[in-house]
Amino acid sequence: DPKLKIFALNSNKPLAEKIAAEVGVELGKSSVKRFSDGEIQINIEESIRGDDIYLVQSTSAPVNDNLMELLIMIDALKRASAHTISVVMPYYGYARQDRKARSREPITAKLVANMLERAGATRVLALDLHAAQIQGFFDIPVDHLMGAPLLADYFLRNEYTGEDTVVVSPDHGGVTRARKLAEFLKAPIAIIDKRRPRPNVAEVMNIVGQVDGKHCIIIDDMIDTAGTITLAAAALKNAGATEVLVAATHAIFSGPAVERLENSVIEQVVVTDSIQLAEDKKLDKLVQVSVGPLIGRAITRIQENKPVSPLFENRFK
Amino acid sequence: DPKLKIFALNSNKPLAEKIAAEVGVELGKSSVKRFSDGEIQINIEESIRGDDIYLVQSTSAPVNDNLMELLIMIDALKRASAHTISVVMPYYGYARQDRKARSREPITAKLVANMLERAGATRVLALDLHAAQIQGFFDIPVDHLMGAPLLADYFLRNEYTGEDTVVVSPDHGGVTRARKLAEFLKAPIAIIDKRRPRPNVAEVMNIVGQVDGKHCIIIDDMIDTAGTITLAAAALKNAGATEVLVAATHAIFSGPAVERLENSVIEQVVVTDSIQLAEDKKLDKLVQVSVGPLIGRAITRIQENKPVSPLFENRFK
Ligand SMILES: Nc1ncnc2c1ncn2[C@@H]1O[C@H](COP(=O)(O)O)[C@@H](O)[C@H]1O
Ligand SMILES: Nc1ncnc2c1ncn2[C@@H]1O[C@H](COP(=O)(O)O)[C@@H](O)[C@H]1O
Repeated sequence: DPKLKIFALNSNKPLAEKIAAEVGVELGKSSVKRFSDGEIQINIEESIRGDDIYLVQSTSAPVNDNLMELLIMIDALKRASAHTISVVMPYYGYARQDRKARSREPITAKLVANMLERAGATRVLALDLHAAQIQGFFDIPVDHLMGAPLLADYFLRNEYTGEDTVVVSPDHGGVTRARKLAEFLKAPIAIIDKRRPRPNVAEVMNIVGQVDGKHCIIIDDMIDTAGTITLAAAALKNAGATEVLVAATHAIFSGPAVERLENSVIEQVVVTDSIQLAEDKKLDKLVQVSVGPLIGRAITRIQENKPVSPLFENRFK
Repeated sequence: DPKLKIFALNSNKPLAEKIAAEVGVELGKSSVKRFSDGEIQINIEESIRGDDIYLVQSTSAPVNDNLMELLIMIDALKRASAHTISVVMPYYGYARQDRKARSREPITAKLVANMLERAGATRVLALDLHAAQIQGFFDIPVDHLMGAPLLADYFLRNEYTGEDTVVVSPDHGGVTRARKLAEFLKAPIAIIDKRRPRPNVAEVMNIVGQVDGKHCIIIDDMIDTAGTITLAAAALKNAGATEVLVAATHAIFSGPAVERLENSVIEQVVVTDSIQLAEDKKLDKLVQVSVGPLIGRAITRIQENKPVSPLFENRFK
């Protein structure tokens, strides 16, 4: 039988450790360094011939370095005769470049898929892809995991449930995600309907649904510069919300994000550890829920040829 | 007829301008920027439908950023219906990772070739590849240009020719390159034969050939940290060389390179502009010869379906 091995690159070692702990293995031995000119130097320091490899790397910032580390490691694993190479990408960089929004733009999310396959990946495990369609950019199996049950667990433990709570989607594109969390919390949903009345006039945030006197949880897949989400929070508060919390799988926190969140009306920011956060980005109001156990259980199920979908059902233990 | 267009990315715009000037066209309009989280954002700002595109990018440091810029731009060009996409890489990053020197290493130079092809490149123009075998990593045409005639021109203009001059290869691998330059200069060659007498003992530099009382020109494909070349220069000086000059196509100049060259016995460092040098790396003893006209002429010949090899013959004008 092929042996299961988990290797970690540099983007998110703490998460990889948690995944390995859940699976019950040690991380594989490899060295990832830089030559003097900045080129990546990788060496796998144990035999992996015939093994089933799970390679953990989030392509968060610095995205190009993390992506090249991943591709080079896949190349090394392939040449070292790995049996299978499953790429575990808790965060999939370039996911927002998933279509031509204007003429003559690239579709970088597809380019990344092509690169991973060409390098030698045989399977991908991803978490809350910006668009579910990205699964179709691959011709190899993609297991698409969801952070919603974990985020739901946190809110349920803190008694955010029932009619006093509202799950809010910050835009039309996120309604499915909001509905999923609302189901877990047995709570209603609301939607923020951004409209620009005329060109060059600030957007108006209309709230569709009942938020007055309620605990509002805005859910999104990622928080990047936190512009949209802090404006949405202010609009909810204006409309009479008792409290505004925010939930998101991916904490990108670029540019003014930390400052904006700090100075906002938001009481709590609940995210996962799909992206490793620098210490100076860990706000007081931040709560980090680990996806390590979830990904670990998914890996175990995949190795046992069991479906991963029951992990996301309401009552799975 | 398809129209010839030249586009430049960010690694070496001044060289791209020189290439375009030689060909007699303006650079194509495109924008290459960064999103707040560091992801590359590219847009091509003119129609290129049905055109023959030459895309100039050296994958020098920051190598991963420059490589991803290149791949994303190829993707954008392909989706915008370019007729052909010729990638002009005056410097090919990761070229030294061209074989498994140890077990379980990647072959990143081949990975890069696969990525370029998968993204959509239809031809590659490269200059003094670290190993000529890298041409075989591609299944598309590769035009391999040589800097030697340009470097030779510089030395001939300064009367380094005949028996008073010796062209020195700093190692066994570089003898072909040294012979080529020596032919142009009608000068003899010498070779530095590095030997480690016992393990953990410093290397001894034996000089094979006559250097006493001669003007020595050490030639290499690249100067990275300048360790080898400054040691070789000292050995030549010790052996009675009147003067030591250094010639190389690619000025990587990483880590202690500038300091080492500055403090060495080397009188002049003659390189090309295949890699754009920061101002603080331009030593007083540095001479930069442009490969712009050479690459421009190669592009013109390729568009006219003429061979490029005559550009590297002794008497081609
Ligand atoms: N890293 C990024 N940061 C900000 N915007 C991006 C990024 N990548 C892509 N985009 C843009 O975001 C839009 C897609 O976002 P969305 O409409 O939420 O799917 C596209 O117009 C992209 O040009
Ligand atoms: N960027 C780099 N800087 C220094 N050494 C490198 C680099 N890339 C590859 N190498 C190593 O250089 C050796 C190849 O150099 P060479 O023997 O000159 O072809 C291999 O052992 C590589 O591991």
